Amino acid sequence: MRHLLSTHDLDRADIEGLIELARGFAEVQTRDVRKVPALRGKTVVMAFFEDSTRTRTSFDLAAKRLSADVINFSASASSVKKGESIRDTIETLSAMEIDAIVVRHRSSGVPHQITQWTDASVINAGDGWHAHPTQALLDSYTLVERFGSLDGKHIALCGDINHSRVARSNVDAFTKLGATVTLVAPHTLLPRNLDGWPVRVESKLDNVVGDVDVAYMLRIQQERLTDSPFPTLREYRSNYGLTVERAARMRPDAVIMHPGPMNRGVEIDPEVAGQENSLVLQQVANGIPVRMAVLFSTLGPGRFDDVAKLAGSVGVAK
Amino acid sequence: MRHLLSTHDLDRADIEGLIELARGFAEVQTRDVRKVPALRGKTVVMAFFEDSTRTRTSFDLAAKRLSADVINFSASASSVKKGESIRDTIETLSAMEIDAIVVRHRSSGVPHQITQWTDASVINAGDGWHAHPTQALLDSYTLVERFGSLDGKHIALCGDINHSRVARSNVDAFTKLGATVTLVAPHTLLPRNLDGWPVRVESKLDNVVGDVDVAYMLRIQQERLTDSPFPTLREYRSNYGLTVERAARMRPDAVIMHPGPMNRGVEIDPEVAGQENSLVLQQVANGIPVRMAVLFSTLGPGRFDDVAKLAGSVGVAK
Amino acid sequence: MRHLLSTHDLDRADIEGLIELARGFAEVQTRDVRKVPALRGKTVVMAFFEDSTRTRTSFDLAAKRLSADVINFSASASSVKKGESIRDTIETLSAMEIDAIVVRHRSSGVPHQITQWTDASVINAGDGWHAHPTQALLDSYTLVERFGSLDGKHIALCGDINHSRVARSNVDAFTKLGATVTLVAPHTLLPRNLDGWPVRVESKLDNVVGDVDVAYMLRIQQERLTDSPFPTLREYRSNYGLTVERAARMRPDAVIMHPGPMNRGVEIDPEVAGQENSLVLQQVANGIPVRMAVLFSTLGPGRFDDVAKLAGSVGVAK
Repeated sequence: MRHLLSTHDLDRADIEGLIELARGFAEVQTRDVRKVPALRGKTVVMAFFEDSTRTRTSFDLAAKRLSADVINFSASASSVKKGESIRDTIETLSAMEIDAIVVRHRSSGVPHQITQWTDASVINAGDGWHAHPTQALLDSYTLVERFGSLDGKHIALCGDINHSRVARSNVDAFTKLGATVTLVAPHTLLPRNLDGWPVRVESKLDNVVGDVDVAYMLRIQQERLTDSPFPTLREYRSNYGLTVERAARMRPDAVIMHPGPMNRGVEIDPEVAGQENSLVLQQVANGIPVRMAVLFSTLGPGRFDDVAKLAGSVGVAK
Repeated sequence: MRHLLSTHDLDRADIEGLIELARGFAEVQTRDVRKVPALRGKTVVMAFFEDSTRTRTSFDLAAKRLSADVINFSASASSVKKGESIRDTIETLSAMEIDAIVVRHRSSGVPHQITQWTDASVINAGDGWHAHPTQALLDSYTLVERFGSLDGKHIALCGDINHSRVARSNVDAFTKLGATVTLVAPHTLLPRNLDGWPVRVESKLDNVVGDVDVAYMLRIQQERLTDSPFPTLREYRSNYGLTVERAARMRPDAVIMHPGPMNRGVEIDPEVAGQENSLVLQQVANGIPVRMAVLFSTLGPGRFDDVAKLAGSVGVAK
Repeated sequence: MRHLLSTHDLDRADIEGLIELARGFAEVQTRDVRKVPALRGKTVVMAFFEDSTRTRTSFDLAAKRLSADVINFSASASSVKKGESIRDTIETLSAMEIDAIVVRHRSSGVPHQITQWTDASVINAGDGWHAHPTQALLDSYTLVERFGSLDGKHIALCGDINHSRVARSNVDAFTKLGATVTLVAPHTLLPRNLDGWPVRVESKLDNVVGDVDVAYMLRIQQERLTDSPFPTLREYRSNYGLTVERAARMRPDAVIMHPGPMNRGVEIDPEVAGQENSLVLQQVANGIPVRMAVLFSTLGPGRFDDVAKLAGSVGVAK
């Protein structure tokens, strides 16, 4: 694996291999010295053309815990204003012998474009509505840790599906791992065309909340509110929010997820976000070992299909 | 010591223990390789919700010289706008297995609040008018280095006492170490209620400048000037500035301090800031070993009351 | 060499020594672990009062690949607004026991001023129209790698000479290494007085493009356009741009250079920037080992005139 652009480039064995490797790196996080020298002397550039404190910090920590050097390239502090100059930026950074570019951009496809301009590994940290593969991997990891396997599990993805790269990547990863996915959203927040999406669709959260193993709530983005796809936040909450009442109707072993940051009181009630079966902070925690696995697989000495060998080589697996 | 929120949590022995430990780290600063591996694999997050180049840089260097990894979390680059989301921010960072959060915030009490949301050590780098404990520790260290002891010394703190966290923390630390403190300020820049403050008050700098061992000048903050607590800067200087004339009337062994950044020509004359008995740059220099001592005490393997053992364990003390 | 302020402080042997040392560090860049411990425990402060993603990133990487700790001091995030406070900033940073300050400033002479306020090494990363010595060194290195020697080579520097620190530093370095330099520019973009410049002057690129070994194109800065030194960009390109047609008339072994970032379609055509004899990305790549050589020479254990010994001491030379 040279790049990680989308879960669509990964098959089930690839995802399971990354999860196994991440499990090894998770063990590193429990040590007194939470670091391995696996990527010493490697340079990872964080090219966040769209800001994101949480994802950037997670990648930054993952790289540092592999002993890589991290360069933060801030698009706002640079002269990057127009799309055409991204190429110059990437070619310039690449000439400096860097090893990976972690890129986030508001336009779908930019990470893929970038692979044409660099010899470095390109890791997609979110592009437009298109893909957010490390989020899907950390969510998959979190659920495999919880349930052992996703085979036969039923996952509801609820909220603004249309504008969500998280939804697109998670539908792909979850179904590859054997889960059934139901999208829950008003008509206005669904893609116009769902041909080829391996999903069921529900217009009411009440219809599925008692059946699912996972209620995965998506963030309602403030900028969408001006488009008025739904009359009011209050009405949204009443139909699509994971309220205390709805959460109480979930199966005893079912879990709650959210990619963050949460709009407490809109798509999820504050009490629900903090209750025992909420995996929200576990998702954040798992971001580190999953991103360590991705960086190590793309930059390390081997390929991630040799997971056992790779894991052995850094002493992170038994 | 798990957190450092205020000097009020420290007794005299605690302060002296930290000073002894800092002395060991100061020796490290004179080596060719100014680094010890004491905190390798630990992660320190700089969460400066209010910007401060000098304090942030000092903590950043202190952490790096202990071989910790440093994550700079910039509140302005993040989505932190409202007080309620600080909790989400802290919980998210904490889920990433970090070891310390160095926090500065314009509101008093935020560092204390943060301790409820994290397992990491919280170190207060200045909160509102409330406290700035590492400033008080580095000032105490600087004076102990100079005088051997603060017992019986007389220190004037001069300027905007009311809005100063430095004043509050220093009054506490200096008096615990045995010094007598006199506040010198116009009525308008004093707290309304000084009950419980172990201090004398003077309204004229001229009344004490010839007696004190230390003239500690506080910064007049630009934003206070719009409140017009005093008619003009010129008038402020004439009554409360450490002018060349006043500095010449100080005792021969007395010293001058300022927490920086200085308004040269307002609370202190430019010539005075640079004269031989000014400890201003020594205060800055001492910030590094003092903050190394604080980070090491809160994150290291032991507690800071075992100072000798701690100091021995990193090879920084004889 | 304690500071690097200008190529004018270097003689031919100095420049050749730095090039030899850089050659050693370039070899380090080809290793699997692109790092040497040469400056472990040293602190390098990036004080960019004028922003520059590419130069800052290059120095940052150079310092990290020497294992130094890097502190990014952002002038915009700090309280530095007025020239007089630069002194306080530098004195404060210096009190923290730092080893080098890499400084960029819009005013000529600031790096020289700074040497009076610090014991640290000062490295000029560009000051006003005055000097950009590491750019001249990396350009010289690039040409020596290409041609073996600059003796007898003919270099055209074309564009906005008057406002260009790159032009001033390169004229000096290239002529010291034995090259002949011709400035190509309209009257309005030349300094009023060229007394003492060891150059020829041409007003038409067409007059020299077929003769030179190097066509070094300078960036037309957007802010100059408001001064209207030339009627239109189109007219500038037609007289001074390295168009496809002009590039085709260059000698077969001649090369094209540009310090970046390029205005494609103004001073250089897009196709020309990417053609085989363009060294633009090689210049960027060489920035790292050249800046490693400069940092090592100023901060390392010896002086750079002992290049062989220095190079031997970090295992970067045969």
